[in-house]
Formats: sequence, structure tokens, C-alpha cells
Amino acid sequence: MSTASCSLSELAHRLDGILEGASDPPVTSVAGLREAGPSDLSFLNNPKYAKLLRETRAGAVLVSKTWEGEHGCALIRVDNPDAAFAKATEIFRPAPVRRVPGIAASAVIGRDVILGEDAHIGENAVIADGVHIGNRCEIHAGVFIGENAKLGEDIVLHAGAVLREHVILGDRVIIHNNAVIGSDGFGYSVDAAGVRTKVPQVGTVRIGDDVEIGACVCVDRARFGETRIGNGVKIDNLVQIAHNVVIQDHAVIVSQTGISGSSVVCQHAILAGQVGVAGHLTIGEHAVVGAQGGVTKDVPPKTYVWGTPAQPFEQYSKSLAHVSRLPKLQQKLAALEARIAQLEASDS
Amino acid sequence: MSTASCSLSELAHRLDGILEGASDPPVTSVAGLREAGPSDLSFLNNPKYAKLLRETRAGAVLVSKTWEGEHGCALIRVDNPDAAFAKATEIFRPAPVRRVPGIAASAVIGRDVILGEDAHIGENAVIADGVHIGNRCEIHAGVFIGENAKLGEDIVLHAGAVLREHVILGDRVIIHNNAVIGSDGFGYSVDAAGVRTKVPQVGTVRIGDDVEIGACVCVDRARFGETRIGNGVKIDNLVQIAHNVVIQDHAVIVSQTGISGSSVVCQHAILAGQVGVAGHLTIGEHAVVGAQGGVTKDVPPKTYVWGTPAQPFEQYSKSLAHVSRLPKLQQKLAALEARIAQLEASDS
Amino acid sequence: MSTASCSLSELAHRLDGILEGASDPPVTSVAGLREAGPSDLSFLNNPKYAKLLRETRAGAVLVSKTWEGEHGCALIRVDNPDAAFAKATEIFRPAPVRRVPGIAASAVIGRDVILGEDAHIGENAVIADGVHIGNRCEIHAGVFIGENAKLGEDIVLHAGAVLREHVILGDRVIIHNNAVIGSDGFGYSVDAAGVRTKVPQVGTVRIGDDVEIGACVCVDRARFGETRIGNGVKIDNLVQIAHNVVIQDHAVIVSQTGISGSSVVCQHAILAGQVGVAGHLTIGEHAVVGAQGGVTKDVPPKTYVWGTPAQPFEQYSKSLAHVSRLPKLQQKLAALEARIAQLEASDS
Repeated sequence: MSTASCSLSELAHRLDGILEGASDPPVTSVAGLREAGPSDLSFLNNPKYAKLLRETRAGAVLVSKTWEGEHGCALIRVDNPDAAFAKATEIFRPAPVRRVPGIAASAVIGRDVILGEDAHIGENAVIADGVHIGNRCEIHAGVFIGENAKLGEDIVLHAGAVLREHVILGDRVIIHNNAVIGSDGFGYSVDAAGVRTKVPQVGTVRIGDDVEIGACVCVDRARFGETRIGNGVKIDNLVQIAHNVVIQDHAVIVSQTGISGSSVVCQHAILAGQVGVAGHLTIGEHAVVGAQGGVTKDVPPKTYVWGTPAQPFEQYSKSLAHVSRLPKLQQKLAALEARIAQLEASDS
Repeated sequence: MSTASCSLSELAHRLDGILEGASDPPVTSVAGLREAGPSDLSFLNNPKYAKLLRETRAGAVLVSKTWEGEHGCALIRVDNPDAAFAKATEIFRPAPVRRVPGIAASAVIGRDVILGEDAHIGENAVIADGVHIGNRCEIHAGVFIGENAKLGEDIVLHAGAVLREHVILGDRVIIHNNAVIGSDGFGYSVDAAGVRTKVPQVGTVRIGDDVEIGACVCVDRARFGETRIGNGVKIDNLVQIAHNVVIQDHAVIVSQTGISGSSVVCQHAILAGQVGVAGHLTIGEHAVVGAQGGVTKDVPPKTYVWGTPAQPFEQYSKSLAHVSRLPKLQQKLAALEARIAQLEASDS
Repeated sequence: MSTASCSLSELAHRLDGILEGASDPPVTSVAGLREAGPSDLSFLNNPKYAKLLRETRAGAVLVSKTWEGEHGCALIRVDNPDAAFAKATEIFRPAPVRRVPGIAASAVIGRDVILGEDAHIGENAVIADGVHIGNRCEIHAGVFIGENAKLGEDIVLHAGAVLREHVILGDRVIIHNNAVIGSDGFGYSVDAAGVRTKVPQVGTVRIGDDVEIGACVCVDRARFGETRIGNGVKIDNLVQIAHNVVIQDHAVIVSQTGISGSSVVCQHAILAGQVGVAGHLTIGEHAVVGAQGGVTKDVPPKTYVWGTPAQPFEQYSKSLAHVSRLPKLQQKLAALEARIAQLEASDS
């Protein structure tokens, strides 16, 4: 939803720009060149996308005053398209939601809960016994915080997030909707008949400062000790982090990645989307695993790996190239065989 | 749970069929030939599955009056096995749940909420300030709808679903349990030390008419403007849709697929299960990406691609076939080498 | 959070061990050798990890009385490091949470609900009409149980879990937070214009005894009949189980795996993490699919398959090895070609 609508000409005026276009339709939002529709303002920030101006469906596109090129849309010429687009984004952004300090009437607060100053507890949130919540935390509607969990300051837990018992969060942590922190790890003993018995998962989860965790992420509590997420770590939606994993400071985990039990992701490492990491491995500092990669052994620091099983990127790229040339190689082999047969014939 | 149980002979009678079987056990459910157990009725609708009739554990199988073949189970012969099976499905289906219009006593409704006629708001649902809900919407237990969200008519939000602030839904949208629409996109600026700072995600999500979204799906709000899902789009469980993605009308996204930021999935495209799409790409109209495919560049319209990186299906299939023949190619090469050595020996 | 802190010397005393170390820092938790920090106790249980003792950051490591080797950390020598570590784990584990029988004041209980003895219904849980809940079940905060669901005894449903209408659970089932059991299957009819119409999903889900289901798992209800999960099945987080799938007794499904409609996973089969299984297939008894494998045809019993499309492990490993040797093969081919050219020259 946009909270504003204004005509193209008014918009050009507000952005100190010059409109080049035949009509003056209302604009209600902003969008990238590929995604924009007739009621969107878009912008050209990189010359390599200039060809998109022939086909964009945007209502108008912000370009620099000197830009020249083919286009099939209205233009608004400005001094700095980036800055003007940022300004337009502010015009069309919905008003941010402000949550006032206090406890909603329908929230349920257990015994021995310590609540910091100016904290907000939303409707139908459930805070179990012995929980500590720091100053200025926002606990949104329907959140569950289990027994004795400890939260630092300035935390935001979005609606539906679950923190299980004994979990510890640092300061300025953001956890998105329906994420689960502290569910049991996946651990069983197996008897001779292949029947599994649950191994109690008696540890917990400790999360540092300035961590953001996406929607529907699952972080399992440790079998013993702690599953640990360091400072500044950013985790995208639908990621799985198994028991006793350690994610060190400033690592980045992109959507739908899964990290198996007891593996360590070192500082500043990046796991791209849908990566899988087997158990008991170490991904070195500043290492990068490409999307859908499957890591089956330790990754050295500052190494870029890809593929399943994951290999150094250049090696894997060469393998892919060789595979794509296999049909030609097959032909070449047949040609050589014919030449050998020829030689054999003349030889005999 | 089946709400009915009846003997095989009574079932045959109700389906206008002829029972061929020695015993008359009770039937409580219906199932496919592979999955059926002794208390299930199954059916043969395709001759290619006829061999399953020798091994199925079904209590009885519906076949046509003229069918002949080996079977290890009771049969019920009918004129039209498909129609009879549909009728049996109705006999054994649980009674559908009807939700009456009205607001549950435990629901929490904010200020300035507009509620259409005959809408149902379930127990413990939380509707924030300024939300509009159209006629005949069903908002089930524990759903959270954030500030100023706008819902069309005849929508069903299943228990635990979360709609964040400002999200817009068309008519006849179904959102399954614990799905999250409008969580923040995954966007950061990075400083020289590799420390990330959150880029505000100030846009929203707009969803069209007749869209169905599965359980635990995550659709991120736009960094600016709107993440967009068109009319008639069907999204399976556990799918990730990043900020500023556009899914055009009638596209189909199968379970556990992930689509990175700002990519566009054009009309009628199909992404099979566990597909990954990198950012800023376009999947053309009527294109298909095979299961687990990893899309790293634009996919032209009406193209079927597979593999990681995704390639045209035929090309990828040929590559796979060549790889599987590599052991033979290796042998052939060794044989040629021997023949060359032979020639060289006789030549010298 | 650890509920205890004790000095290294006191810990050595409590574990009947002998401390070898210069300082006596406080210990607050236990951890593996790779993950441990200065306030953790760790242990050496397998000689192959002995080299980790040179680099571990653990406050101290439990080793056997006779162990000799390089180490850069304090040691506590004990008779049986495994047993001593288990004891230490108990010292540092947080106190388990006990839930008392009874119905929380904020829980909402529908009509015709049957509640067993000593059951616990947590805050803000919603139990719809006609639900049966067996003895000693724990239904945690914010859980939703739909109409006419039937639960056996000694079940634990963690906060935020959703059981949809008519779902049936056996005894001793554990379902983790925000898992969804019984959402609609993904089924549509398609018209000539490519517009999809929902096929009603009128079946349900039946789960056996001693099943554990992870956080954010989705199990779809059947199109007709039942989606079935047998006894002793263990399912990790974020797994997708489509409509009419059958998981037989004691199968194991690791995180982020997806199983398409109507496939059967036979007894004791294991699907490792991020596996995909196409529809209408059978994974045989005791079969294993390696991580990220993509199963496109039936897997025979007791077979270990890997890759996409999944192949017998040895065959796939050989293919991978052959691919990695392609650069050498290319060189060999060039060398043979040169020798042939030489022969041809001398022949003419």
C-alpha cells in the first residue's frame, strides 16, 4: 500500500526534476525497471541497464540530466537519480508503525518476570516465569518467550516468534515472524532393531548483539552446552541451524541454508542460498559457499567453493566447462579412432 | 479421521458395484494403490498401474466391469472406477468445518478497523489499528494482521498466519498456517570491516486475486515499492520470496523453492520443488524450471531448464548421459592408446 | 544459560579428576572441542580429534588418566572422560521446565472437547470443538488444535504448533514449535488457458506412536484418505511432506527435505538433509538417500543413492571422480592426437 498518490508533474516538481512525457498519470509507488508498472516511478542508476528503458512499463523513469538513449517511457531528468529516487521512496513509503511502551491487556506475564523500562508487550504475547526483558524491547503480538529466557536491550521480536526456555539474546537483536529459537536438536540413539530413542537436548541457545534472524528460521538448542550465534550475524528466512552449531561474528547465512550439528561457521563467512553443510565441519573466516553448494569437508579461510560436493570455485567451473564439452570430446575420439583404423589398414 | 466405516459388501452396494472377494472387512478410508492398507478402498484408473494389483494391501480395489488381470486383493467391479472412487471419497471424507460470521470473544480488534459483512474473526486473533477486512473473510485463530493492512473479500487466513503492516490482498486469497507475508527483506550495507548495517525495508507486499499460499511460506516486503504476486498464483509450502520479487499471473511455485531479490517470474511460469533463482533475473512466460534447478541467468519464455546452473533440458540431459558414459570413454581411450603403441612399434 | 558456575578446581573435584593447569577460571558450560571457549569444559572421546587439543580455546579438556599428547589447554584427567562429561553436562544443564496439569485461564476450549487426566493446556491455546486429548498431554502456549482432532496420550505440542481439523495422533508424539500438521495439499485442475482451480483436499493426516516432528515442518492433509506417518518416525525441522505421502515405521527424514505427493518412504529408510523426492515413488526399506539428493525413480530396498538424479552411491562417486579427471583426459586425448599425426606423417 502506498500512503500517497501524486501526478507525474507534481512528482517531478517535488524532486526538482524536468518531466519529459506526453501524459500525466498518477504515481503511487516506486519499483525497479523490470518490475515497474504504469503507476510506478523507476530509476536508471547503472548504464548497463539502459536497454531496459526501451521495454520498462514504468510510469516514468528518473535519469540524469545528460542521459541520452532509447526509451519507451516518460522521463524525469534530475541532477542525481539515486538521491531523487531515495527521496521518492520516502514520499511513497507507508508511515512506520510506532509501538508504545506498556503491556497489552491480553498479554500473559508469568511470575518473577523482570521487565525493563519502556518495553512493549503486544497483544496475546505469553511471557513465561523467570524471563528477563531489557529496556526498550518490543515483544509483538502472539510471541512466546519460554521460562528463564534472558533478553538484552532494544530487541524486536515480531509477531509469532518463539523463544524457548533458557535462550539468551544480546542487545539490538531482531527476530522475524514465526522464527523458532531453541527447539530440540535432532538426536537419537538407535538400537539393533533400528528403533530410535530421543537423546535429551539439555543445552540452550546464546545469541550475541546486532543479530537479525529471518521469518520461519529454526535454531535448535544444544544437546549440551550452547548453540551459539555471534555478534552482527545476519540470517535470512527459512534457515536451519542444528544443535551445537557455532556461527561466529558477522557471518551471513542466506535463505533456506541448512547447517548440520556441531559445525562452525567462522567470522565473516557467507553461505549463499540453499547451501547445505554436513556436521562437525569448519567453514573458515571470510570463506564463501555458492548457492546450493553442498559442503562435505572443511572449507579453508578466504576460499570460494561451489557445487556438491563443494570444491574451489575455479576447479568446479572448469569441471562444468569440461562436462559441457563432452559431446565434442566424444566426436573427437571417434575421429581419432577412424584415423587409427586407417593407419592400421595401411599398416597391414 | 474418517467419519464413516462400512463393510465391503455395503460399500459395493452403495457404489452400484459387484464385489469379488472372500471376506467382508470394514473399510474406513480411501487411498492410492501403493499406500493403501487393509481398511482402505483403492482404485485402478490407469492400465499402467495394473501390476500394482498383485501387491497392493488395499481392502478392495475398484476396477471396470471388463477389467482382467492378476490381482491379490478383493475387487469391486463398477461401470466407471473414477466416478465410483470420487463417490467413495465423499462417503469417507470428514465433515467440513463451517465457521460462523462474528468476532470471537478472545479476539483483539484495534482502532479504526473496518470489518465487512459476514466476516469471521477467530479466537485469539489480533487485528491491529486501521486494518480493512472485506466481506465474508475468515480470519482463523491466532492470526495476526498488522497495521493498515487491506484485505479484499472471501479471504481465508488459516490459524497462525501473519500479515505484516500495510500488506494488500485481493479477493479469494487463501493463506495457510504460519505463513508470513511482509517480513523485512534481507538487505544490509557493509563497511570496510565487513560489519553490516540494516537497510530499512520501507515497501510492502501486494497480492492479487485467487492466490493460494502454503504453510510456512515467507514473502518479504519490498525494500521500496512493492513485492508483487499476481492473480491466480499458487505457492506451495515453505517457499521463500525475497524483497521486490514479482510473480506474475498464474505462475506456480512448488515447495521449498527460493526466489532472490528483484527477480521476475512471468505469467504461467512453473518453478518445480526446491528450485533456487538468483537475484535480478527474469523467468519468461510459460517457462519451467525442473526440481532442484539453480537459475543463474534469465530463462527465455516457454523454455524448460534443469540443473545447476540451469540449462535447457535437452542439453542438460545430454550432459548427464555423457557423464554416465565416462567410464566407457576412458576404456575406449585406453584401447586406442594401445593400438597407437602397436602402430608405433611396427612403424619403428 | 547455564544455571551453575564453578571454578576449574572445584569441577575437577566433583568429577573425581586431577587438574593440570596454571590458572583456575570459572566454568559455566560444556562444549565440543571446536566450539568451546574459555568458560567451557570440553572432552576428548576419540583419539582422532587429539590434534584439536593443540588449538582448542576450551577452559579445560577432560582426558583419560593415561592420555599423552600435545595440548595448549588445561586438562582434567579422569578414569572415563565420556562418563565424566555426561556428569558435567548435568551440572551445567538448565533446570528442566515442569508443566503442571490444568487449563490456563487464557486458553479457549470449544464444545464437546474431551480432556484426559492430568493434561496441561497452556496460555492462549485454542482447542476447537470436538477435540479429544488423551491423558497427560502437554499442549503449550498458543497451540491451535482444529475441529475433531484426536490425540493419544503423553503428547507434547510445543508453543505455536498447529494441528488442523480431523488430524489423528498416536501416543507419545512430540511436535515442535510452529510446525503445521494438516494444511491443504497442493492440488489444482488446469484449464486450457492455464488457469488453476483448487481441488478440494478432503482427507486428513494420521500419525502413529513415538513420532517426533521438528519446528516449522509442514505435513499436508490428503487429497482423499490419509497422509500417513508410521510409528517411531523422526522428522527434523523445515521438512515438507505433501498430500497422500506415506512414511512407514522408523523412517528418518532430515532437515529441509521435501517429499512430493503420494510417494512412499518404507520402513527404516533415511532421507538425509535437503533431499527432494518426486511424486508417486517408493523409497525401499532401509534405503538411504544422501544429502541434497534428488530422487526421480523408485529406490530399491537397502540401497544408498546420491546425486540428482539420484543414482547408486558407488556409480555416482565414480561419475564424480571421472568428471574431476576430465582435464587430464583432455590432455591425454591431445597427446594421442599428436602421436597419430606423427604416425600419419611417417606413413605418407
